Amino acid sequence: MICNDRETLRVMVEEANKLTKHGKVADYIPALKTADRDALSIAVYEEGTCASAGDIQEKFTLQSISKVLSLALALMDNGEEEVFSRVGMEPTGDPFNSIIKLETHSPSKPLNPMINAGALSVTSMIHGGSVEERLGRLLTFIHELTGNPSISYNEEVAKSEYETADLNRALVYFMKQHGVINENSETLLELYTKQCAIEVNCEDLAKIGYVIANEGLHAESQRPVIPLHIARILKTFMVTCGMYNASGEFAIRVGIPAKSGVSGGIMASVPHRVGIGIYGPALDEKGNSVAGMQLLEVLSQRYDLSIF
Amino acid sequence: MICNDRETLRVMVEEANKLTKHGKVADYIPALKTADRDALSIAVYEEGTCASAGDIQEKFTLQSISKVLSLALALMDNGEEEVFSRVGMEPTGDPFNSIIKLETHSPSKPLNPMINAGALSVTSMIHGGSVEERLGRLLTFIHELTGNPSISYNEEVAKSEYETADLNRALVYFMKQHGVINENSETLLELYTKQCAIEVNCEDLAKIGYVIANEGLHAESQRPVIPLHIARILKTFMVTCGMYNASGEFAIRVGIPAKSGVSGGIMASVPHRVGIGIYGPALDEKGNSVAGMQLLEVLSQRYDLSIF
Amino acid sequence: MICNDRETLRVMVEEANKLTKHGKVADYIPALKTADRDALSIAVYEEGTCASAGDIQEKFTLQSISKVLSLALALMDNGEEEVFSRVGMEPTGDPFNSIIKLETHSPSKPLNPMINAGALSVTSMIHGGSVEERLGRLLTFIHELTGNPSISYNEEVAKSEYETADLNRALVYFMKQHGVINENSETLLELYTKQCAIEVNCEDLAKIGYVIANEGLHAESQRPVIPLHIARILKTFMVTCGMYNASGEFAIRVGIPAKSGVSGGIMASVPHRVGIGIYGPALDEKGNSVAGMQLLEVLSQRYDLSIF
Amino acid sequence: MICNDRETLRVMVEEANKLTKHGKVADYIPALKTADRDALSIAVYEEGTCASAGDIQEKFTLQSISKVLSLALALMDNGEEEVFSRVGMEPTGDPFNSIIKLETHSPSKPLNPMINAGALSVTSMIHGGSVEERLGRLLTFIHELTGNPSISYNEEVAKSEYETADLNRALVYFMKQHGVINENSETLLELYTKQCAIEVNCEDLAKIGYVIANEGLHAESQRPVIPLHIARILKTFMVTCGMYNASGEFAIRVGIPAKSGVSGGIMASVPHRVGIGIYGPALDEKGNSVAGMQLLEVLSQRYDLSIF
Repeated sequence: MICNDRETLRVMVEEANKLTKHGKVADYIPALKTADRDALSIAVYEEGTCASAGDIQEKFTLQSISKVLSLALALMDNGEEEVFSRVGMEPTGDPFNSIIKLETHSPSKPLNPMINAGALSVTSMIHGGSVEERLGRLLTFIHELTGNPSISYNEEVAKSEYETADLNRALVYFMKQHGVINENSETLLELYTKQCAIEVNCEDLAKIGYVIANEGLHAESQRPVIPLHIARILKTFMVTCGMYNASGEFAIRVGIPAKSGVSGGIMASVPHRVGIGIYGPALDEKGNSVAGMQLLEVLSQRYDLSIF
Repeated sequence: MICNDRETLRVMVEEANKLTKHGKVADYIPALKTADRDALSIAVYEEGTCASAGDIQEKFTLQSISKVLSLALALMDNGEEEVFSRVGMEPTGDPFNSIIKLETHSPSKPLNPMINAGALSVTSMIHGGSVEERLGRLLTFIHELTGNPSISYNEEVAKSEYETADLNRALVYFMKQHGVINENSETLLELYTKQCAIEVNCEDLAKIGYVIANEGLHAESQRPVIPLHIARILKTFMVTCGMYNASGEFAIRVGIPAKSGVSGGIMASVPHRVGIGIYGPALDEKGNSVAGMQLLEVLSQRYDLSIF
Repeated sequence: MICNDRETLRVMVEEANKLTKHGKVADYIPALKTADRDALSIAVYEEGTCASAGDIQEKFTLQSISKVLSLALALMDNGEEEVFSRVGMEPTGDPFNSIIKLETHSPSKPLNPMINAGALSVTSMIHGGSVEERLGRLLTFIHELTGNPSISYNEEVAKSEYETADLNRALVYFMKQHGVINENSETLLELYTKQCAIEVNCEDLAKIGYVIANEGLHAESQRPVIPLHIARILKTFMVTCGMYNASGEFAIRVGIPAKSGVSGGIMASVPHRVGIGIYGPALDEKGNSVAGMQLLEVLSQRYDLSIF
Repeated sequence: MICNDRETLRVMVEEANKLTKHGKVADYIPALKTADRDALSIAVYEEGTCASAGDIQEKFTLQSISKVLSLALALMDNGEEEVFSRVGMEPTGDPFNSIIKLETHSPSKPLNPMINAGALSVTSMIHGGSVEERLGRLLTFIHELTGNPSISYNEEVAKSEYETADLNRALVYFMKQHGVINENSETLLELYTKQCAIEVNCEDLAKIGYVIANEGLHAESQRPVIPLHIARILKTFMVTCGMYNASGEFAIRVGIPAKSGVSGGIMASVPHRVGIGIYGPALDEKGNSVAGMQLLEVLSQRYDLSIF
């Protein structure tokens, strides 16, 4: 399918690229401001990168896309029961960084792992004795998923986010007050901001998306890297809350489990079919890559990728 | 699959039936109080009712399940653009009858068509000159979907709900103030409460679920009764917000597009496969049939029905 | 004091009048749009109108100022215990027309009688068999307070507000759902909008303010028209929530119990001293008369009128 | 008046003391749990302690009562304009420790200085180079107000509150994110928890209340210790938001500017008349001393102390 039709993919990217001028690069994290607004690249993975367009080797940070991977690891470390005792499963109509529901909901655990409060609770459940060890475990997991052992985090971005993380600190302390998070807040924020600053390229993302799409089996080895039931949980959250406050609309227009980040990345997983990695740093007002969203919508229509 | 294994289905129902004692029949609508708490029935439809258990001819009212059908009709009447200018596409973490987001969100349109505010906005878009004509069009649509021309509404339930609909009146007037709803409020509430009081049985529900599951094609005639893109929209909302505030958890545990109602009904649509109708009036604290949810979870696991 | 210094008052009004160009006349009620933005008048009452400036015979509608009078009557009709079982005593940081706290607070009674929800609950407690009788009782009460038997309501304004009262309808139905209001909603809204449309002039307002200021005693007859403890309750609400969301700032800057309305009226009561009536339809963004507020601040400073 | 009638005061205390069994001692701060639930004492100050009952030398911590004093100092240090650019003047219907309005209000400054968020913002404006210096300035101010140079803070209580201050940390970081607070959070929390742990007795409180009541003039020296306009601001906040979420009801029933703390203290200021200090650690569900409130209500009625 997609892989036999590379010229079509090239044309689609060219078309979608026209939208970048309607978006703008994230500026609330200083280190992200310098991204090239008009960049757009995509990698589609079946078994081996089957198709791509744009500079798929360009590196960018995972940001919120990392929430899917920390959730996978926390679930493998702790089991469903423990994880979902400290983070909910329900989508929310509130912004990703909202604190309100922590006060109004009882119990006060965050609604889901894709909003910041929930992701912080999830990251605090990653096992390990030190930030280095825990981050190392997450990186090892990502190396395994991608087959790319060179993946690490961007120190400058991590530092920049750590220093401007006061809203996340507020979320952490609020949850500490209610017993949802028990560890030292600065330790957690250091781990969390490093996790968000992990750098990948489109090909890496496509490979991870592929594993999640294909029941957790590694593309080349066919070895299970993520247990089947966890791979399903990840796809479910990607559908119900993967695209910030536009998740519902994206599910209708595109219908593919996907997770975006403010760096402009999108990772998508078409169940039993392909993994997709996109990089397009021009964002719409909800924080999603404008051109990336458009590209996925066109792809979904042409190749009938919707799960619905 | 399911259809070749009727004994298994019977055993599953027997098992799930044990849960009814943990639920309770809805009592906020007077006419629903008299339901038999321990009832549980299921119909599975492929082409012809392929399997069933319990008294699948017992009638119950659609209640919130009707929101899926009024949405289908409103979309056919008005097109996506018009409909989604007056109701959003995003799931919400707030209760189904909450009014808060109407005040805090800008613009103040309801977040999605499955919460009461959104469903009222949708019903107000059903074309027709009078309540009778508009309700008649909805019933005709349901007759077509089910092949059952005897389906009508329960006057006693409709009257009872109309008389106790003050919270829905509050929602309607709030939306009138903001121009989301333009028609007379009592006309709308009459239509809406009659829509909620439409009476079906499990077999009817299974047949409607089947059409939605199968790209809008009628099971017997293979004629398109619902346009493909609308059938997809329906399934999407059933996943992201079909089971009240337990939609996220249901998507993870079961993974089947489904819509519940406080009468105890659940309609489910496994894409490209089967439609399911369940009746089990013992509800959990979120308003979903306890035994019905359990039955769907067991079915999903045994026959691998999850879309994720 | 003020009364011996009429020239000073005239100069103060002239100065304050310069602020009207920074305000704008209320436009959300059609019948109010035609007011003269630059009008400004004040009457100060001790025993006999002791001082005034501007056209103090110009009539305007009470709007929210009426909430003080309906509260007085409801308290005389029902007693404190009954009234405060259906409306709270606490100020709120939410807008006067907000519905949110009705959903989030438990029990769901409105926070105080000066926000719309609370005022509607209060008006529903005015005794009488029909709208005419109940409105008649309120008018008789006002005739008694002012000695002006010609005071009535403006039919055009009442009609205009009744027709655009959908937000108030939403509040009423929400409270009916929770048992806070028990009467027919249209009856209540007819009474409430007529109450808001009662027409007075500055002199009338000053006289009413005087009675409230002076322990409920009629200025001329020294007869108790309002029981002492009720006069105190009125002043308390005027301080804690009389000036919409600017009540706290007004208490600090001016320190006089006062109630404003969107018609541009302000009624003020300096305990044991004077009553003041002001009309200045140019409003600030919070709904208070810009020039009227300024005039009261200057008066308070010059004559040391603050209760604090 | 009160001072000539000590026997009456003694009887009032005896009566009010019967209410302590309906309250409970604060337990969310470990160091407060050991207070004697049935203690009740009062000091009334005119010029010299004119009347008292109970053990008026027993020491307790100021807790929220300190918010009035830090506000006075911050206003003297920075002026009104600066202070009210970082904290509002409006009462709120939300709990004293709520974070919601910081997210929903724009700009996100806290609504008033009596809720925790506002008090933290105020304390951050106290001038000085170190915690020691700033706390020292606050203590010196209190020594001046009371004439009692032995007043200091309770280290155990301060430490205990500092260690359990995660909710306050959340408030601080949320405000840092929005530029309302600019200093180091732990520095601020150390200062704030020490401020809350300042220990006084009823007589001290009565003397401070007296200064605030009497235009900021020191009782003995008649020297201005607090500028007049600041003394008025303090009384205003004591009326509109001094008694947590019961401020409105207290203003109606008692009508005296007052501020309570969870240690069971209440400081009251009857304008131009007396200062009152009360200690009664049995609290009602809103955090106010049950017996203390009752005592003030009886006093207000008997001696006509209401400002309304």
